[in-house]
Parts: sequence; structure tokens; C-alpha cells
Amino acid sequence: MHAIVDHIQSVNSHAGEQAQRHLDTLTKPPGSLGALEGLAIQLSAITGELKPSVTPPAVIVFAADHGVAAEGVSAFPQEVTAQMVANFANGGAAINVFARQINALVEIVDVGVASTLTITGVTSANVRHGTANMVKEDAMQTAEAIEAIDVGVAAVERAKRAGAKCLIVGEMGIANTTASSAILAVLTGESVASVVGAGTGINERQQAHKVAVIERAIAARNADPLAPLEVLAKLGGLEIAAMTGAYLAAAAQRLPAIVDGFIATVAALTACRISPAVRDYLIFGHRSQEPGHDVALKALEARPLLDMSMRLGEGSGAALAYPLLQAAAAMMAEMATFTDAGVSDKAAL
Amino acid sequence: MHAIVDHIQSVNSHAGEQAQRHLDTLTKPPGSLGALEGLAIQLSAITGELKPSVTPPAVIVFAADHGVAAEGVSAFPQEVTAQMVANFANGGAAINVFARQINALVEIVDVGVASTLTITGVTSANVRHGTANMVKEDAMQTAEAIEAIDVGVAAVERAKRAGAKCLIVGEMGIANTTASSAILAVLTGESVASVVGAGTGINERQQAHKVAVIERAIAARNADPLAPLEVLAKLGGLEIAAMTGAYLAAAAQRLPAIVDGFIATVAALTACRISPAVRDYLIFGHRSQEPGHDVALKALEARPLLDMSMRLGEGSGAALAYPLLQAAAAMMAEMATFTDAGVSDKAAL
Repeated sequence: MHAIVDHIQSVNSHAGEQAQRHLDTLTKPPGSLGALEGLAIQLSAITGELKPSVTPPAVIVFAADHGVAAEGVSAFPQEVTAQMVANFANGGAAINVFARQINALVEIVDVGVASTLTITGVTSANVRHGTANMVKEDAMQTAEAIEAIDVGVAAVERAKRAGAKCLIVGEMGIANTTASSAILAVLTGESVASVVGAGTGINERQQAHKVAVIERAIAARNADPLAPLEVLAKLGGLEIAAMTGAYLAAAAQRLPAIVDGFIATVAALTACRISPAVRDYLIFGHRSQEPGHDVALKALEARPLLDMSMRLGEGSGAALAYPLLQAAAAMMAEMATFTDAGVSDKAAL
Repeated sequence: MHAIVDHIQSVNSHAGEQAQRHLDTLTKPPGSLGALEGLAIQLSAITGELKPSVTPPAVIVFAADHGVAAEGVSAFPQEVTAQMVANFANGGAAINVFARQINALVEIVDVGVASTLTITGVTSANVRHGTANMVKEDAMQTAEAIEAIDVGVAAVERAKRAGAKCLIVGEMGIANTTASSAILAVLTGESVASVVGAGTGINERQQAHKVAVIERAIAARNADPLAPLEVLAKLGGLEIAAMTGAYLAAAAQRLPAIVDGFIATVAALTACRISPAVRDYLIFGHRSQEPGHDVALKALEARPLLDMSMRLGEGSGAALAYPLLQAAAAMMAEMATFTDAGVSDKAAL
């Protein structure tokens, strides 16, 4: 982890300014493509290229289990994590469908599923069989968190070697909104009640229980809000740590990363607390229905591309947003200028 | 026009309900794909199919000029309409770039450009060489508006015969935000000031002038708000009439149509005033930066898919939204069910 953090540099703002100048020569009223123009400028700043490519994208899904599931915080039983990993491997989950739509490279990584998996097509990088129950003990040791971060780093490096030009990082882990809510409350100082939502579908009474469980865990673990790695180890999850590592590696490799929903954004916030320069490499795919997502987005001063009231995870919202990056890149590469097209760019008034 | 209106039927709500039931068997928490699920249900209701296809889409761009441009209401001179038609034919405009991204069939239709065009690749269906200046006389005769509507109907029928499964209708016409604002103010009863914006880029003083021009035209034309065809003829544009016809034809052909920004939404509102059943065949692509767009969306009780602060037209925002329809269709066709995948769908609590 420390080696990768040392490699992270600021984005290339000079390339971003050149992109802005190019945009203003294209056959459209200046600024009329709105947020798509901002996206193009960011892609240029990330890659250092005036006409960047984001093709092909890579989808990496990290799966792990959470000891805190024993507290009854999720609508689904823990075995669903492993069952969904099998579904990913068979190509039947939402993220598989959306990954095929965008011709993405796909890797599924077991970074901490509770059971021993023998599923063809799943990368085995199990750091431990699920975290401990954070109400009773630290979710994991700092060394384990670093090991999980390095699993994320290694996955991004494989994607880069395979030719990926854009990263979509997803997750699967029953009870991982509970871990994410705990991390977010500690890192931002917001109340637990303000960041906890329905997750995969619990009712109001169950939400109150989830809030109480998280509050007990936060009190018992007593993590230092200014030490993101400690917060991640004591209250986090192995897939959340791997995602944190993936965002660190994306920045180090100058690859744009599309951040998915609540859990992904909490991992992104953790990465930015470890290395603030990561922020400018991140593009936010969508606004999730999980209330904590707004808190996490605000902490990152992020405005997501889509707002579809989704709350699935897996990287699904980021994959849906990817065609907008492709369109931004194509706009830079393919649109005619006023001069090329012989279109009058002088105002009539 | 009258023949096509007689063919419009309500969408198939039974097929929509079947789609809802299928969605709840797929490997995801119920409702967790949010607006994408609503989109899938709408596509099923439009097509009557449980697993509808939206591939390939067709992009149809209608171009026409506006006599009211003589009042100095636009940031660009009138000749830009014809110059941009040439740019469309050469594949250099934003809509061309986005159409290529989504592998769309493309047709550019001259329904009323002021000059005589001889551009290869442009369908010639010129009803008249631009509208009259609506401040001084009716923009066009009712018979001309109907003829322009029929140009739109014919273009959709060609697209359908070519295999199109989804429509994206765009426009080009210097001063067409002025005509659209006039139509919208009359059809909704909202004040002209509340629907007028910067268009392609005019300043505040110029906007005040634009408001005054539209107010004079509305007072002079005295169109009946309950007679949409009269409003369209007296204050509209030939490309706006063609788009109105295209939405009527989309509904008659049971094709989903993605509505673009301000001008497109005013045409869609006009179509819905002519035949209210059209509404359920429309999917709203994006929320434009033009203030009148919000008024038009509200009148249609529409929530657009994207909100990217765009204001270009040409069908660009609708084309950017298209991959979401593709993803919704793929979700229905390709996602595994809980039973197929052996995933526990019982709640843990």
C-alpha cells in the first residue's frame, strides 16, 4: 500500500485547460454540452491526453463477508454473498448484464468470503474468511486491511496490463452497508442515524436496530477519525479495503475510476483520506437511494452523473454511467470544429 | 395527420404488470434497480412484450428556419441552420457522434430550411422556406402545419420499416427556442418570462428583448390555447410540427420515443394535447438548462433520466440517455432469477 500511495500525483490541469480550449472550437454553442464537457476536461486531466480513450473499461467486483451480519442487520442471510459470487461467475447478475452492454473486461475477486469457494472464474485472494463481528472485536487487524488493500491494487494492475482504460469497481457482501455506515459516521463525524438506510430492504424497526448495533461498535472500537487505515481495519470490510486499494491504484496508474453507490463512495472517501490527490481521478456514477450516500458524496464534494433511485451495488450504477464517459471521449475525438465545418460562429446580435 | 391519430391506442398495462412480476424474480433486492425498473415496465407496456428490444434506435433530425429570427432573438445568424444541416450530413455534429456510439440509424430531414439545399444524405421534404415572422403574421397556415406533421409521420414510418425499435427525434433551427417558448406559454398559460432562457447564448438584455418579441407575437396571433394545431401553426415552426408528427407516429406504431430537451418537449406536449394517449409512449431523456424545459416537463408530469445541464438540442440528450433503455431491456432479457441462480431470496430477519 505505501508504495502505491507514493506513486500518486495530481492530475494534469494543463491538459484539462487544453481540453477546454478544444471544446470551445467545436460546432455547438460554448458550454452547451454541460456536464459532458466537464467530464471531457476531467478525462484529459486524468490521462494527460487531449483526446483520451476510455475503451475498454474493466469491471472488478470484490466480495467478502461481515461478522456483524450475526447481529441481524441485513434483510438477506450471509450465505447470499457466496451464492451471488457464483451468480457473477455464471454471468447472471445485474453487473454481468451491464458489463456485457459496455464490452467490459470483468474480474470477480474473493477477498474475504466466509466459506471456501471453488468457483471457476473467481480470483481467489481471500485474506480471511470474513471480518470479525465489530461489535465484539476489531473487524480485522491493520495488517489484514493492508493485505486487502493490496488485493485491490493488484487487481487494478492486472486490469491495466489487460488494456483497461477506465475502472468500474463493485462489491458484494451481506451487511456491508452496516460496515460502510460505521466508517462514514466516524470519518465525517455525522450521526449514525443520518447515514443508515434500508440497505437491501429492512423496515423501520430493523433500521433502528441497525443504528444501535453500529453505535455500539463505534463506541467499542474507538477508532481515531484522523487515521483512515485504523477506521477501515476496526469497522470496515475486506471488500471495502480492496476497493480503497483499487481507487489508490487507479490514481497511481492515471486511470479514471467510476465510483458506484454508497459502499463504493465510502471506500473512495477512505482512499481520499489516505491520499487526497485521489479525488480528481474519481468520477461519480450515480446517486444511490441509501441516505448515507448523500453524506459521503458531500464529504467528497461530488455530483454524480445519474440519479436513478438505485441501491443494488455490484458496480451497477457505475456501469450504467460509463456510456457518458464514452460519449465525452468521442465528442473530443470526433466532433467537427466551426472552421472544419464552415459554420458561422459569430453571434448574430 | 388525422389517420395517424385514429391509430393511437393506450399502452398495454397488462404487459407492464407482467414485467413488474418478472422483475421481482430477478437476483436483486426488489426495486433496487430503481428508475431502470420503471423504464423496463414502460418498455413492456409500450411494446406489449415481456422482453422488449430497443435495438437499433433511429435518430431523426428535422431542420427548419424561423421568420422570427429577423427580430434578433438568437445568438447565431439564420444561415447557421443550413450550415449545421451540412455538418449533420458530413457526420461532424454532436448528434452524429452520439448516434455512432449507439449504432443508430440516422436520417436528416429538411422540412423547412430557408435556403434551397442540395446536400447529399439529407431528405428533402421542404414544406416552405422557413416560417413567416410570427410578430407580423401567422408563422404558417394550418395546412402547412399538417403537411409538416405528416413529414414527421412519414419519417417514423421509414424508420420503422428499416427496423428501428426506438426513436430519438432531434431538431435544428435558429430561433426555435423563441417559437417553442411562444407555444409553451400559450398551451400552459405560464408567463413568457418564466419560459424564456438564454437559448444558444444570449445575455440578459437580449433575453428581455426575446420576451417582448414573443409577447407581441402571442398578442397579435391570438391563438386558442385549447386548439393545439392552431397554436402550432400560428406560433410554431416546421421542425416543431414534424417532431409533433413523429411523436404521434411513434405512439401509433407502438415505438418508444426518447424526448430530447426544450424544443422536443414542447413538440411532445403539442402531440399529447392532440392525442393524450401519446404520453405513455414517451421517455424523457434529460433535463435541459433552458428554464422553459422545466415548465414543459411539469405539464407532462415527466421526470427525465439525465440531468447534465445541457442545452444543445439536435436530439443529443436523448441519444445520451439511450444506453439506459438498452440496459433496462437487457436486464429483463438476461438477468438470472433467484431460482435459476440458487440464491436465497428469503429475508434473514
